[in-house]
Amino acid sequence: TQSFRITLLPGDGIGPEIMAVTVDVMNQIGSQLDLSFDFQEALMGGAAIDETGSPLPEATLETCKQSDAVLLAAIGGYKWDTLPRHQRPETGLLALRAGLELFANLRPATILPQLVDASSLKREVVEGVDIMVVRELTGGIYFGEPKGIFQSETGEKRGVSTMAYTESEIDRIGRVAFETAQKRQGRLCSVDKANVLEVSQLWRDLITALAADYPDVELSHLYVDNAAMQLVRWPKQFDTIVTGNLFGDILSDAAAMLTGSIGMLPSASLGADGPGVFEPVHGSAPDIAGQDKANPLAQVLSAAMMLRYGLDQPAAADKIEAAVNTVLDQGYRTGDIMAEGMTPVGCKAMGDAILEAL
Amino acid sequence: TQSFRITLLPGDGIGPEIMAVTVDVMNQIGSQLDLSFDFQEALMGGAAIDETGSPLPEATLETCKQSDAVLLAAIGGYKWDTLPRHQRPETGLLALRAGLELFANLRPATILPQLVDASSLKREVVEGVDIMVVRELTGGIYFGEPKGIFQSETGEKRGVSTMAYTESEIDRIGRVAFETAQKRQGRLCSVDKANVLEVSQLWRDLITALAADYPDVELSHLYVDNAAMQLVRWPKQFDTIVTGNLFGDILSDAAAMLTGSIGMLPSASLGADGPGVFEPVHGSAPDIAGQDKANPLAQVLSAAMMLRYGLDQPAAADKIEAAVNTVLDQGYRTGDIMAEGMTPVGCKAMGDAILEAL
Ligand SMILES: CC(C)[C@H](C(=O)O)[C@@H](O)C(=O)O
Ligand SMILES: CC(C)[C@H](C(=O)O)[C@@H](O)C(=O)O
Repeated sequence: TQSFRITLLPGDGIGPEIMAVTVDVMNQIGSQLDLSFDFQEALMGGAAIDETGSPLPEATLETCKQSDAVLLAAIGGYKWDTLPRHQRPETGLLALRAGLELFANLRPATILPQLVDASSLKREVVEGVDIMVVRELTGGIYFGEPKGIFQSETGEKRGVSTMAYTESEIDRIGRVAFETAQKRQGRLCSVDKANVLEVSQLWRDLITALAADYPDVELSHLYVDNAAMQLVRWPKQFDTIVTGNLFGDILSDAAAMLTGSIGMLPSASLGADGPGVFEPVHGSAPDIAGQDKANPLAQVLSAAMMLRYGLDQPAAADKIEAAVNTVLDQGYRTGDIMAEGMTPVGCKAMGDAILEAL
Repeated sequence: TQSFRITLLPGDGIGPEIMAVTVDVMNQIGSQLDLSFDFQEALMGGAAIDETGSPLPEATLETCKQSDAVLLAAIGGYKWDTLPRHQRPETGLLALRAGLELFANLRPATILPQLVDASSLKREVVEGVDIMVVRELTGGIYFGEPKGIFQSETGEKRGVSTMAYTESEIDRIGRVAFETAQKRQGRLCSVDKANVLEVSQLWRDLITALAADYPDVELSHLYVDNAAMQLVRWPKQFDTIVTGNLFGDILSDAAAMLTGSIGMLPSASLGADGPGVFEPVHGSAPDIAGQDKANPLAQVLSAAMMLRYGLDQPAAADKIEAAVNTVLDQGYRTGDIMAEGMTPVGCKAMGDAILEAL
């Protein structure tokens, strides 16, 4: 039996419900494939603020560091939106990324054939879309110094945030992106704003230079405004996209929404070594929390990404992804992806269907 | 007879062709409404680089300053893409914006009923979409200091761009946005990244405070990643959007592409006083330049925006917009918006159809 230590961060809103389903799925897959998971639950987000005053308590970060992988559900909610910034749930997320040095964020935007009609885009435009956004996650304008609200010479306030990248930061995310593209269709599109921003100019120069090490990958470049347009116009042109923290935030969300079903999309955040964090793209949906209405599939698929990218257990990941495919084929749908002729189910029932399919 | 001095910047690629059509349209409307236009042509973009070495010669900026409004077509092309940054066409555009202090960029994204099917989105999602993006144009990360590629302490290069806004910069674009919303449906959505960026925090605080002066406008806020999602998911929820330079660059292009016909979209860039610049959203399309294939309608509609926002001649603007509507109803289509059963025309023939319709 191979054994793994997994930190669970159920967080807020629908987090605990979808996490519960996912733990059941993992336990079942474990017993089938002779893997054992040692789950350790820890506080994060609003739940942590309520108990400790901090959105990422020191103890939680320690637990994460000592595990093989971290499974995060969702954090945040109206209740904590008005707190000062250092006490907000999002600040905990940024601290987790920094604390574990999770510089590479992988965000797939995949259209599942069963859910093509959920998209706001025409069937022929989105059918078969399969994009992987590789987003830099611990640099850029999210963390650049100086930042703050300062007094300017004229006596008025001036808000300042700094978008900065060093050579080594660009190099390491670039390598992850080229390697990701190699395992996919071999096409990498780097997105920047090099016609205006100096930081993007450095980005483009270094990504261009890296291409020499990956002759099997076809590299292209787009400005971020054009990339946003092209995602809307003809998303199938993309295979792998690499970009900085802020552009990746925007473009990965736009790409996710092309699918029309963000309740289905997982993500992975990886560091050089140490545990990765795996979480759904969707939020904590406080409006439906505790009502057994949430779609647990993105969380379940995040566990699959954890098995694939974090624990090197591709067979287990394949099985989970196949089970999700099966339940969709069987017509089970939570409210967010419900369509005519399908069978409506709640969060728990969807979980049961997956266990069944496994 | 009222008389106006108009600087024409035909620029590169298809610029001269679509400008020629537009000048004819303006002359005709002038003779109908007893307006006289004194056109002055000046060099900008690649054309200016080739003749003077600079993408915005001093003489051009002077001519612009002495006119009542500036009509720009399109600049740029492969030929100038590899020049050092200070000699690139885009640099001329940024210098024009700075030189005329054009802090407010109005970018409508309107779906014309005749062209609904050109969109990559489903008819029911885009039909009736009518969004105005108010983008701050002379501040933010486009102009913030410090910027450059510096040596970091570790000896590696560090690219730096600074996103900064002062109170007065936010205040003046905010007022333009609220006033724009007042003239539209009275709903204003401010887009920022206040959960991460200090500069956005200041932005949000000030826009929120401004709302007290415009009690008839309903103000909401979205984070930029969510705004990108919502534009794709259900664009009809938006009326007027206000945002900073970079977010506006990205979101206005995404919004434009929702229409599926960016060959139709004009824009206006306005300063406190002094002339505004009016130009199509699309680029210079060097691949079809000089072949009489370009769609001149965005340029013609830019002239309408100029008449409305720059010269206070709404009647003339209305007439031009009605004429564009007529030619579309008549089924005339350039290649970019061609559809089954319609009549294909070139750039000049489209111009003739508009003159006819007037
Ligand atoms: C919550 C927020 C800080 C976060 C981000 O901007 O990175 C979120 O939007 C995301 O994409 O994970
Ligand atoms: C050409 C470029 C500098 C410009 C910008 O980024 O503002 C363009 O994308 C635009 O939106 O007008």
